[in-house]
Amino acid sequence: MTNKLNSAINFAHENENRFRDELIELVRIPSVSTDVEHKGDMQKAAEYLANKLKGIGMNNVSIMPTGGHPVVYADFLTAGDDKPTVVIYGHYDVQPTDPIELWESDPFAAEIRDGKLFGRGTSDMKGQVMASIHAVEAWMKQGGMPINIKWLLEGEEEIGSPSLGKFIENNKDLFACDFALNPDGGILAEDLPTIPYSLRGLAYLELTLFGPAGDLHSGQFGGAVLNPANELARLIGGMHDENGRITLPNFYDSVVELDDEERKELARLPQDEAFYLEQTGSPKLWGEKGYTPVEHTGGRPTLDVNGLLSGFTGEGSKTVLPAKAMAKISMRLVANQDPIQVKKQLIQYIEENIRPGVTWTLDEHTGAKPSLTSRDSDGVKALAKAMETVWDVRPLYYRVGGSIPVVGQMMEILGVDSVMTGFGLPDDNLHAPNEKLTLGPWYKGIDTLIHFFANLVAN
Amino acid sequence: MTNKLNSAINFAHENENRFRDELIELVRIPSVSTDVEHKGDMQKAAEYLANKLKGIGMNNVSIMPTGGHPVVYADFLTAGDDKPTVVIYGHYDVQPTDPIELWESDPFAAEIRDGKLFGRGTSDMKGQVMASIHAVEAWMKQGGMPINIKWLLEGEEEIGSPSLGKFIENNKDLFACDFALNPDGGILAEDLPTIPYSLRGLAYLELTLFGPAGDLHSGQFGGAVLNPANELARLIGGMHDENGRITLPNFYDSVVELDDEERKELARLPQDEAFYLEQTGSPKLWGEKGYTPVEHTGGRPTLDVNGLLSGFTGEGSKTVLPAKAMAKISMRLVANQDPIQVKKQLIQYIEENIRPGVTWTLDEHTGAKPSLTSRDSDGVKALAKAMETVWDVRPLYYRVGGSIPVVGQMMEILGVDSVMTGFGLPDDNLHAPNEKLTLGPWYKGIDTLIHFFANLVAN
Repeated sequence: MTNKLNSAINFAHENENRFRDELIELVRIPSVSTDVEHKGDMQKAAEYLANKLKGIGMNNVSIMPTGGHPVVYADFLTAGDDKPTVVIYGHYDVQPTDPIELWESDPFAAEIRDGKLFGRGTSDMKGQVMASIHAVEAWMKQGGMPINIKWLLEGEEEIGSPSLGKFIENNKDLFACDFALNPDGGILAEDLPTIPYSLRGLAYLELTLFGPAGDLHSGQFGGAVLNPANELARLIGGMHDENGRITLPNFYDSVVELDDEERKELARLPQDEAFYLEQTGSPKLWGEKGYTPVEHTGGRPTLDVNGLLSGFTGEGSKTVLPAKAMAKISMRLVANQDPIQVKKQLIQYIEENIRPGVTWTLDEHTGAKPSLTSRDSDGVKALAKAMETVWDVRPLYYRVGGSIPVVGQMMEILGVDSVMTGFGLPDDNLHAPNEKLTLGPWYKGIDTLIHFFANLVAN
Repeated sequence: MTNKLNSAINFAHENENRFRDELIELVRIPSVSTDVEHKGDMQKAAEYLANKLKGIGMNNVSIMPTGGHPVVYADFLTAGDDKPTVVIYGHYDVQPTDPIELWESDPFAAEIRDGKLFGRGTSDMKGQVMASIHAVEAWMKQGGMPINIKWLLEGEEEIGSPSLGKFIENNKDLFACDFALNPDGGILAEDLPTIPYSLRGLAYLELTLFGPAGDLHSGQFGGAVLNPANELARLIGGMHDENGRITLPNFYDSVVELDDEERKELARLPQDEAFYLEQTGSPKLWGEKGYTPVEHTGGRPTLDVNGLLSGFTGEGSKTVLPAKAMAKISMRLVANQDPIQVKKQLIQYIEENIRPGVTWTLDEHTGAKPSLTSRDSDGVKALAKAMETVWDVRPLYYRVGGSIPVVGQMMEILGVDSVMTGFGLPDDNLHAPNEKLTLGPWYKGIDTLIHFFANLVAN
């Protein structure tokens, strides 16, 4: 095993330039999933990956229709029943490039400057997909994989993976596994390997209050009817208490609290108050009393207004008493909150607090369950050990504030956790002009994955 | 005097058809002040009125430039220094006609159907201006007016009288008077003569809260920064207490409370809860505890959100933590509140309550002082007596919920109260398709004004 591992690492080092050039080939296919004009490119990117997987020796390679953009499937299941089976997730679609005029080089030229590969999708996440393929190739050259793997490479992540849930549902047996590897994350700095082990969930709702039948003259009727904009503000204003805690009934009941050991781990993260002030540009930080910003954004639930609209919003003044008022309200959830329960708690809060002068509707936009992968699970331990070997430092553990729907879907449909990884950096300009991938940590990432596969079967 | 009065009334009755036809002539001039295409018609309407005033014997008739549409001035000041001097206010401009397709007859054809004159401006307020001119003509036929009068007929009321304040300021001496007569009001029903003796003032402000430097991802940063939309809602939510009272510091200090006798008068008004429910279409009325809807809308101050805007307001969901949030907030004021003081109270409330995670701006859009003309003043008593004579019922006293800027300007610049009157009805479709004037009460209005002038000098 150690011989094969060393040989796989050597292979990877010897092939760094070819690995990089293959990534460049993939980046040059403008697979923008939002844009129907790129439908052909989506197919081309899927075919590129299918050919590549075939080339490195994967079995059952196929481009599977989903109703939307296809999923590339492949597997290699010869490691034996006693070895773990891992689904390697990835997406081959990329964000649009606008505003195109802010790019310093053609987003699909994949230009290298100063050790960085610039181009749309380099970091998010063609680089991560190719790193996984390269790591597997390095093992295949040693006679095969130490574990069983299945590939699930989708083409709709940047449009919210509309087809994926149903696709996994329909192919539940095909994707049966012990856990998933999801390299759609990143590390915090070139010298700080990081393991994201938790994602927040989401409950995104739209609350509309209806008062008078139509907009009223605020002089003629103001004072005698409940103004839905005032009432909406009052309701929202009451959703937090003075300590920044959310007041929906039973909201915190199922929240897994951070324990001292976890808080100590999180405190190792370099993101201090100054970091958050600088990143947000807020005049002052504010959050639930008793927690640090890293804990606020990763380990605690939130309730944020994402949008407000009522009455007259143009220039100047119009003395209208609006007929309705709308707020988009979303809650970031942490384990073990459930978006369906949280919606019920919001409904209960509204019912208990709203005044009778308005009626209301609550529409649901999205829901995603939070996830929390144990830092003591085999997958996370194997990844941590691999990172420590390659970087020679103990990795940081990190809770991600956002949601990755596919992680929740795998949990929900396949009943498996996801081990999150990825080797991009915070300044990679994801979804922005001049996206880039720094090649140094990317090569280390390939090494890390090679070690990771070995660690999963080490005794 | 009684002979002259009877003779003036007889003259008016004998000339009803001619009076109506002259109104029709004026309505047929499409003097839409908002529309530059009607600039010539504005001039024509001003000339029509100037000629008419000259024709009935007024002195110093002139069309005075204002920078915007002109003011028609005239006077007749021969009643003697011991007699009151009254400025008769009016406006000759009208609202636009859209949606034109909803009119049942050409808005400028001035068609009579079923005792009603249909046309733009018939009720608001060419009919009221002509009623005043006809009443004065009836007196002039008796050898002259019993009081001194000055005319101020502007052409910009429907666009907010932008030039008027400065014009009155520049002509302060010209318009010196004991009080103003403003017939831009109306009565509540054909058989219910009504005297509006109070107008609410207005302080219209725009509050914007600024949080992060730009919109943030609500997953990445939600929980660690103050969301300006949440905070705006909390601030607005705190501006009323559970009894519907406004919580700005010292807000009610200068409010003239309704006394028992006034509340008894207001209780005579036919507008009960059912009326307000029907007019507003609200599911339930709501207002400051301890007051009736008529008192809410006329006698008590309000704080209404007129507009809300923040973050993402399109279809669906976007997980944005908005960089800013805006609310248009206006307060209707009652005597003796002052919009400048009230703005200071709002600022104090914000300063005392806002959290340090946001900065803010407060822009002022409009301010208007409330007005309250004593029901015991000579002008109101003369009007009440005139109405009782003509209608044979004691008039109702009414507090108007809206603001009429010119009333505040006359108070501020000339130091005089306005006696409000007018003979339109609530269903006259002001500012809407099929505006009309019911001729029966309009003729009574002319009689009322003839009596009113007499009553002002009766001992």
